[in-house]
Amino acid sequence: MKKESVVSPWEVSGEVDYNNLIKDFGVDLLNKDILSKLKEAPPIIRRGLYFTHRDLPQFLADAEKGNKISIVSGRGPSGKMHLGHLIPFIAVKYLQEKYKCPVYIPISDDEKFFFKKDLTQDQVAIHSQDNIIDLIALGFEPKKTFIYTDFSYAPIYKYASAIAKKINLSTAKAVFGFEGESNIGMIFYPAIQSAHIYLPQFLLGSHRTLVPIAIDQDPYMRVLRDVADKFNFIKPSALHSKFLPSLSGSVKMSSSDSSNEVIYLTDSPEEVKRKINKYAFSGGRDTLEEHRKLGGNPDIDISFQYLKYLFEPDDKKLAKIESDYKSGKLLSGELKAILIEKINIFLKEHQKNREKAKKQVDKFMLK
Amino acid sequence: MKKESVVSPWEVSGEVDYNNLIKDFGVDLLNKDILSKLKEAPPIIRRGLYFTHRDLPQFLADAEKGNKISIVSGRGPSGKMHLGHLIPFIAVKYLQEKYKCPVYIPISDDEKFFFKKDLTQDQVAIHSQDNIIDLIALGFEPKKTFIYTDFSYAPIYKYASAIAKKINLSTAKAVFGFEGESNIGMIFYPAIQSAHIYLPQFLLGSHRTLVPIAIDQDPYMRVLRDVADKFNFIKPSALHSKFLPSLSGSVKMSSSDSSNEVIYLTDSPEEVKRKINKYAFSGGRDTLEEHRKLGGNPDIDISFQYLKYLFEPDDKKLAKIESDYKSGKLLSGELKAILIEKINIFLKEHQKNREKAKKQVDKFMLK
Repeated sequence: MKKESVVSPWEVSGEVDYNNLIKDFGVDLLNKDILSKLKEAPPIIRRGLYFTHRDLPQFLADAEKGNKISIVSGRGPSGKMHLGHLIPFIAVKYLQEKYKCPVYIPISDDEKFFFKKDLTQDQVAIHSQDNIIDLIALGFEPKKTFIYTDFSYAPIYKYASAIAKKINLSTAKAVFGFEGESNIGMIFYPAIQSAHIYLPQFLLGSHRTLVPIAIDQDPYMRVLRDVADKFNFIKPSALHSKFLPSLSGSVKMSSSDSSNEVIYLTDSPEEVKRKINKYAFSGGRDTLEEHRKLGGNPDIDISFQYLKYLFEPDDKKLAKIESDYKSGKLLSGELKAILIEKINIFLKEHQKNREKAKKQVDKFMLK
Repeated sequence: MKKESVVSPWEVSGEVDYNNLIKDFGVDLLNKDILSKLKEAPPIIRRGLYFTHRDLPQFLADAEKGNKISIVSGRGPSGKMHLGHLIPFIAVKYLQEKYKCPVYIPISDDEKFFFKKDLTQDQVAIHSQDNIIDLIALGFEPKKTFIYTDFSYAPIYKYASAIAKKINLSTAKAVFGFEGESNIGMIFYPAIQSAHIYLPQFLLGSHRTLVPIAIDQDPYMRVLRDVADKFNFIKPSALHSKFLPSLSGSVKMSSSDSSNEVIYLTDSPEEVKRKINKYAFSGGRDTLEEHRKLGGNPDIDISFQYLKYLFEPDDKKLAKIESDYKSGKLLSGELKAILIEKINIFLKEHQKNREKAKKQVDKFMLK
């Protein structure tokens, strides 16, 4: 029996039917025509982890014309960052590099505090600081990247209030399913999230903003796009990703999973090796003999997915890995070894960059 | 037919039955025994405009013992300040002078923005700045008085969030009557108001805070006192006032009344004279002859009420005015003349102090 599928900004469970989401959310498919308009898209986009959008062509047209544009993508600091959390920021970094635009990164310490029952403000603050270091370590352009947390950047409450006045309780309940038990911080939060996305327009005047987000966050886009006219703002564009699966293959790599399900950005080479070897779901056969004879299935193999979306940008190399795996030439353990090496090269560099980033925090924080 | 009475934090209309409020709100009467414990209470308190309280004896006991104490009373900046707006601050100033305690004055620019349909953030900001000047002009102790606005004092959103997590939608709806049409800013606002009142405890640790407020604001006290335990805070005490009637005698002097109904702190002597003479409801008789024979009724005479609560601190002088008016010796026009002179002396001084206050704003703003 198929598990019931839930996709909301706070819960993703069951088997997600992405085709249904396209219909339910009313978003547009990221088709070849649009992909061809993007400047040298990274694997994560051209290989389909990003799959839908809202008004992306309009954003690209504005970029083309040299009009003012900006990027927003945020992070909810509920714990240490792992590979799944990189999905939006890989797109953000690509867009900043190719389109030279300012990037705003809200850290929604309030959101995680409101929605996670046992999380304290002090705990969230620790995660925020640590996550900011990871984000800076990704190598954004310091002069064009503005990071802030909701609890410390004073203007956000004012901007959120401007939006809150335009969203009534009925709408918030209809879109987000709030109930009597929902705390009043949760109910206000859509105004804060909207303020994140309108912040570039509040600060720089009306222009097109693109928001790379996981598809579960799209309900916010619908609510906030509806109020654009009231501020003479342009409806922000969105670029939606699917979820990077966890090591065991469950739909979304989530912080609430066991730490064996995810690769943290601070994991040691040994931890990576242990986790991938032990937990990464394999599309290989049960025995060596069978595998050689029948080949593996890359489509359900987590190691292959991670290479495809994150760690093997070279199309030819990826194609070879895929065909070797399918033919049975490449064994599951060998495929894992390729991934482990790639992840560890990335993490070594990232962890070195984290040390440098610790001294750069002030440069990135929006005042 | 008696008009239906409404007393909520945002609406006061009809004939208010204060005895019913005591029962409905579950507050305690400010009786002679408690009054006798207050150090030299000003007319506004000892003559009954302040009439109920919550836990006032506990506050006084802490003050007596030399324990840490504080005062909070705020201002919603929906327009220019008038005499009615002074009620809480006369009590605050008295308490600061006699009990030497720190005073926190939140300016709820967000509240007025959320609840007044046509008010913009820019308009509220103008009122805020102007109201802050009036407040400083009242002569609070600069080193012990901390003024802030919700839109500019960053920590308030964080503290409000801590409280918001403990108040659910059902409670907010039950206490404040929110509906589907209520905007989500309104629904969050009780958390902000609670943060105002707990701010001294957030900043200085657990202690007793006294909140002088008009009785219509008491629902906030009920909600916020209920969450005190969750923060190891002490439930704040409250001192409640009735409403200062408008010139025509309606229950509450309100900014939404016609400007002829209220005396603004910036009114000229001529405006005061004109308004009092023309609009102040009189308890005098229709003809001079009748008045001399039957006397006036001070209990319904607005000029007498203003003298009683605000402008004639001397009990003997007030008693003489009252008996002369009752006997018919003092005419309505003469009574008004006494009030006009007193108001104008006060306003002349206040307006001079406003000019000095404009240069002191920075000293008073909480950073």
